[in-house]
Amino acid sequence: MAHTKIEGEAVSSALCSSLHELRTVGNSGKYFLPRLNSLKEANPKLKLLDVGCGWGHMTASLAKAVGPEGHVVGLDINEDTLALAPEVAKRADVADQVEFIHGDAYKLPFPDATFDMVHCHQVLCHMEKPWDAICEMARVTKPGGIVAIREGDLDSEIVWPQEPGLAKFHKLIATAMNARGRGGGGADSGRQLLPWTLNAGLKRSQITVSYGTWWFDTPEDKDRWGMLEIPFLESLILLKVTNFFLAKAMAAQVRGGMVGEIAKKTGLASGNDLEEMASAWEDWATREDSSLAMIHGEVVIEK
Amino acid sequence: MAHTKIEGEAVSSALCSSLHELRTVGNSGKYFLPRLNSLKEANPKLKLLDVGCGWGHMTASLAKAVGPEGHVVGLDINEDTLALAPEVAKRADVADQVEFIHGDAYKLPFPDATFDMVHCHQVLCHMEKPWDAICEMARVTKPGGIVAIREGDLDSEIVWPQEPGLAKFHKLIATAMNARGRGGGGADSGRQLLPWTLNAGLKRSQITVSYGTWWFDTPEDKDRWGMLEIPFLESLILLKVTNFFLAKAMAAQVRGGMVGEIAKKTGLASGNDLEEMASAWEDWATREDSSLAMIHGEVVIEK
Repeated sequence: MAHTKIEGEAVSSALCSSLHELRTVGNSGKYFLPRLNSLKEANPKLKLLDVGCGWGHMTASLAKAVGPEGHVVGLDINEDTLALAPEVAKRADVADQVEFIHGDAYKLPFPDATFDMVHCHQVLCHMEKPWDAICEMARVTKPGGIVAIREGDLDSEIVWPQEPGLAKFHKLIATAMNARGRGGGGADSGRQLLPWTLNAGLKRSQITVSYGTWWFDTPEDKDRWGMLEIPFLESLILLKVTNFFLAKAMAAQVRGGMVGEIAKKTGLASGNDLEEMASAWEDWATREDSSLAMIHGEVVIEK
Repeated sequence: MAHTKIEGEAVSSALCSSLHELRTVGNSGKYFLPRLNSLKEANPKLKLLDVGCGWGHMTASLAKAVGPEGHVVGLDINEDTLALAPEVAKRADVADQVEFIHGDAYKLPFPDATFDMVHCHQVLCHMEKPWDAICEMARVTKPGGIVAIREGDLDSEIVWPQEPGLAKFHKLIATAMNARGRGGGGADSGRQLLPWTLNAGLKRSQITVSYGTWWFDTPEDKDRWGMLEIPFLESLILLKVTNFFLAKAMAAQVRGGMVGEIAKKTGLASGNDLEEMASAWEDWATREDSSLAMIHGEVVIEK
């Protein structure tokens, strides 16, 4: 989901996009899984909505989690990524359980109380009024259902080794994410899920807060994060998609991708800075002792 | 475990102490529990060592986890806290399964290959040469056994709301923790568990890395963290212990505890700064929308 009104948002969207295909209910849904399983036990014909589904990897994983009788709608405002979603669902063998709809998280095209669960991951950090989107998500959730939201908190990111190039990169991305000014989503979104949810009119007693982590330490994961994400690159080539930058993670994003282009255009980083960042990520990805971790804020809202 | 050679270390030890009684295998041992259960299935008469056990709350929880046939040794360099440990074990009904020994993590008083599992939590951040302690822990572990280590990474701490008083507090504690200079434990210990373990001579293939979180969002938990920790205060009074500062968490630590005293003595914070910090914690603890989270680095080493 890309509200690309300002360049800062475009940078953060582009950066996040290349990693979104890694998401599954197993690695990003532990905080809601017990509640989802309870709902499924009570009614196997669950209806789910995945807000800001991108190209639908998490939507497909949700479809597997609800089982063959469940149905999942993926919604996104970006038609380009949405166009890839049916192919992703087909490859995951859940094509008959999912549908994809073009739409706006601020104005969900559904009546009140339509879904048993509404899911949203790494979307609100790109939005100006995340509480309005949360209000909409609660509106379309059935009484007895849940809204499950997860957002990264970039400012919590820790990395080893602490090279200057990686610190510069962190600062660049955080600056870009915060470019809209304070009040909405940004590099500290994870910790704001609770205040945003209260601001959406929900009561504290309806909200369960948790904090999870996202980390990379194995050679395979570090190669994906720091270097080039081969599996998705291949899938893009197969799908004949031309926006090559989406297939690249940190080093490639900086060196040849949209992050680098926009950083230079806005003056947020020089060519030398970018080369230092890219080299630092390449070094990081090949070291034995390196790792990276980040906190993700999580809320489950009981409707 | 308090290597109170320098005042910075004393600050961080004092701060951590009041929260150590909250630790259990359930909230701080998920990363090693599957491996511990496998070891227990193969041999119910497990021998465990808890390095830097403090007053033994985690030692007692480990004793419950290994079951009635297991045995756990708690070791600490601080005789004052160690003196409380037998009472803690007695109250947890595991007195016959545990023993407590005064000793140094750098020179563990055991032959090679004595234990099935060696556990260590929130200890290495206070040490100058954590890799030497890891080397010792691996030495006393049996082939086929494990070493399980968890360390907070204070620099990853995120808090809402982002009040200046809380930022000042964070800076004070981080400065105190890093007072020994770089190279050893400090406010970025969590991310250094992997390099420290490699530096101890272990191979990358023996090490499993994970990152967990520690967070506070409920009124009860925030009251404990931000204000005064009543349950342990009561237990200290019952135990007729006089070092009152141990019973207080953030606000009280700043206002009347050792953190405040040392901060003033070292010039790290003025009286006004300290009052601002204490008020900020009190406000934080009573707000509906506040929370705090921190990353903990984790390694399991296969011997």
